[in-house]
Amino acid sequence: MPDPHDTQTYPSVEDSLRLVTAAIARHKLVEELVHKQETTRPELPRHELVESLVHKQNLTDLSKKLDGLHPADVAYILEALPLEDRLLVWDLVKAERDGEILLEVSDAVRESLIESMDNRELVAAAASLDTDEIADLAADLPKDVVQELMKSLDQAKRAQVESSLSYDEESVGALMDYDFVTIRADVTLEVALRYLRFLGDLPPHTDKLFVVERNGRLIGTLPLKRMLVHDPEVHVAAVMSDDPVVFHPSDEAADAAQAFERYDLVTAPVVDPQHRLVGRLTVDVVLDFIRAEAEADMLAAAGLQEEEDLFTTVWKAARNRWLWLSVNLVTAIIASRVVGAFEGSIEKLAALAALMPIVAGMGGNSGSQTLTLVVRGLALNLISKDNAKRLMLKEAGIALLNGVVWGGIMGLVTYVLYGQPALAGVMAMAMLLNLMVAAMAGYWAPHLIVRMGHDPAFGAHVLLTFITDSMGFFIFLGLATLLLL
Amino acid sequence: MPDPHDTQTYPSVEDSLRLVTAAIARHKLVEELVHKQETTRPELPRHELVESLVHKQNLTDLSKKLDGLHPADVAYILEALPLEDRLLVWDLVKAERDGEILLEVSDAVRESLIESMDNRELVAAAASLDTDEIADLAADLPKDVVQELMKSLDQAKRAQVESSLSYDEESVGALMDYDFVTIRADVTLEVALRYLRFLGDLPPHTDKLFVVERNGRLIGTLPLKRMLVHDPEVHVAAVMSDDPVVFHPSDEAADAAQAFERYDLVTAPVVDPQHRLVGRLTVDVVLDFIRAEAEADMLAAAGLQEEEDLFTTVWKAARNRWLWLSVNLVTAIIASRVVGAFEGSIEKLAALAALMPIVAGMGGNSGSQTLTLVVRGLALNLISKDNAKRLMLKEAGIALLNGVVWGGIMGLVTYVLYGQPALAGVMAMAMLLNLMVAAMAGYWAPHLIVRMGHDPAFGAHVLLTFITDSMGFFIFLGLATLLLL
Repeated sequence: MPDPHDTQTYPSVEDSLRLVTAAIARHKLVEELVHKQETTRPELPRHELVESLVHKQNLTDLSKKLDGLHPADVAYILEALPLEDRLLVWDLVKAERDGEILLEVSDAVRESLIESMDNRELVAAAASLDTDEIADLAADLPKDVVQELMKSLDQAKRAQVESSLSYDEESVGALMDYDFVTIRADVTLEVALRYLRFLGDLPPHTDKLFVVERNGRLIGTLPLKRMLVHDPEVHVAAVMSDDPVVFHPSDEAADAAQAFERYDLVTAPVVDPQHRLVGRLTVDVVLDFIRAEAEADMLAAAGLQEEEDLFTTVWKAARNRWLWLSVNLVTAIIASRVVGAFEGSIEKLAALAALMPIVAGMGGNSGSQTLTLVVRGLALNLISKDNAKRLMLKEAGIALLNGVVWGGIMGLVTYVLYGQPALAGVMAMAMLLNLMVAAMAGYWAPHLIVRMGHDPAFGAHVLLTFITDSMGFFIFLGLATLLLL
Repeated sequence: MPDPHDTQTYPSVEDSLRLVTAAIARHKLVEELVHKQETTRPELPRHELVESLVHKQNLTDLSKKLDGLHPADVAYILEALPLEDRLLVWDLVKAERDGEILLEVSDAVRESLIESMDNRELVAAAASLDTDEIADLAADLPKDVVQELMKSLDQAKRAQVESSLSYDEESVGALMDYDFVTIRADVTLEVALRYLRFLGDLPPHTDKLFVVERNGRLIGTLPLKRMLVHDPEVHVAAVMSDDPVVFHPSDEAADAAQAFERYDLVTAPVVDPQHRLVGRLTVDVVLDFIRAEAEADMLAAAGLQEEEDLFTTVWKAARNRWLWLSVNLVTAIIASRVVGAFEGSIEKLAALAALMPIVAGMGGNSGSQTLTLVVRGLALNLISKDNAKRLMLKEAGIALLNGVVWGGIMGLVTYVLYGQPALAGVMAMAMLLNLMVAAMAGYWAPHLIVRMGHDPAFGAHVLLTFITDSMGFFIFLGLATLLLL
């Protein structure tokens, strides 16, 4: 990966996108003109030379433009282009940059790019990457490409890729790299400095060296800052930090990300159970992880199975959305059956049909407020058995207060609309009860889903809406049937 | 802020929380025992000495425990404790650590801690911080405390705080600090190294020095890595990076965060329009910003105005939730009036009441899928006038496909349930139409809200649900009235 400090100015990526889009439009225009001339006036000689020159110049300019961009910016441009234009641009990117750009694009767009490449190109692109990056890419590559790729690696690298692949996607092992500089504790800073000068360059993000024993055991870290401010005669052991924050490959990535935030880390060593150094975690990877998790939560909450290429085909997009829609259809049908059981009452008093969505909807909304706070509390480990009861009582208290306030208001509105005090009373009571149900559902749904080993971001909202809809209809129509008819 | 590399081992924060909770429980038990003895057997002499010793020992142990923890960990413990216990622990924290811990807790918990402190304590706590941190805290402090605090600062620091406070909360200016090391281009690395040794310590996260001219103009950056690997005889100008990524105080923080992600930055200089160095942005602040934005979006989507202390009072929590609930009540009443307009039809065919929530609900769900992708696309600047039409057509295509599939299924279900082919046909048609409405609403709602200058995370979902509910009821009941009755 190129160090951004080594590269030239970055113009605004939005500007770059505009330039690229304009170049593509020019290119298409030329193609269209040629085509027009060929079809409408075939008798004219084709000015092949001129055409192909204009054509080539356009594409050469675009290609040069792309060469000057950071891989992340090329990735951004690829994301923003419709499929056809995207593949045109992708063809113009220098082959040796394919690997690093594939790493930067989103999963969905990566898929579309990989589909356009043949096995030879894919192997070449992947082979240019570091071993931890190869492992990141491997999941999206065809199996035969991965096999060929593995054969092309030397044994040490192959072992690293295999070990990276062996870790759970959400673990520290899957995020760590193998790009670190180690040093012994018994040398002086002078010697350490000479060693660094001998290396000539340090891995990206290096803010500290890892101090290890001969057997690989990590005994400390030496921040570069300290190397710079201390007397060169001093020994590493005297200035190293001998109890740094370390991670294990099996640690959950989310916990490591929290530690990076809490302790403001830039890099941290990863050690095995014998405290031998096995890898390194860097803040840029942690940042990407945090952003990806936040996005995945947002998508899951809206019922999208995975990140979706903005310009994917209708068919692919529809498949990405069907699981959630089908679950929702089933829960909606069940809730509808609850209403169906009271069709007799509705025939007698059609106002019930108009009022019942309000009871269900307010339950859903206030329940989702509770649910969101509980999901956040669980994610940050803020909820324990010591404080759970108190939290639940607080939510029940809010629901009671909300029930009295909003139930009262809706009772009044109902009276104004229908002039029936009894109906107004039923409305108020149903609101109060359904808000209590919603608070309990909002509190328990994420607990239940976490205990079943799932991510609450997806299932909890569906479960909540199902409960608040069905129970809202049942409570309101049931009370009305009992008390009014 | 203490450097985590300088401190001792961090045990798991959850373990620390458990220890603190246990200590508080012990403390409360002793208090209760004393109280019991006093009230039930007042004739016994009070073993004051013993009591107070046990008492004190407990609190002293707890206090020592807290001293050994990183400020972020103390903050975590404070977040997880109910109010009363939280204030007990807060009293045990050494006064000189108050400032840094106040910075680490969430806004809501910070408020509860600040309420428990008097002005003198607050001024002392804030005065221990860096100027950019004082500015972060100032918004939450009582006005007279801020005035007193400003008086206690020297002129240079006061100017920094005032300048930090003058920037928009979501801008680079509000996130930057003033903690950087500058160097001239015409000195050798040897001289630069001597200068660093003279400084004795570098600000946290320093990965590069900023190379400036005599008038403060930034002309480059010198990564520490390069200082270490190059010959000390070389001049700074020869090895510095002369075109680094820079930001301006007025830049949007979200854009800067995206640049940090894209270019994997650790620190970056902030310059004024004359390219004079005015501040520094660091990755830890960017990370906190990204996390905070993601949380704010999540809370806003659930209709919570702001982050809520898990253990706040019922009253405070209710106020945090009322804006959204009242907006939802209004939209629900309007949707209910749509149904009300068709009460005559519902009296004749109560099945309509049972089926109408399905039409509305499926519209809301599929619309929110479109909406989520559009919000993400807008946030990442992926949607432009060049590709907008294509995106809208894709979403319309998916809605059409979904409408045929789910409308067909629901038509079949309706026929099975009610045995009325005409009703089944109306159901299928209404589903198809409302899914099309939902796709357009999902596409346009965020555009509209962004164009009005607001954050789509909050308003877009309410607007969408309002449209899909009202239109769903209207389309289904209208078609039924026209075609069935």
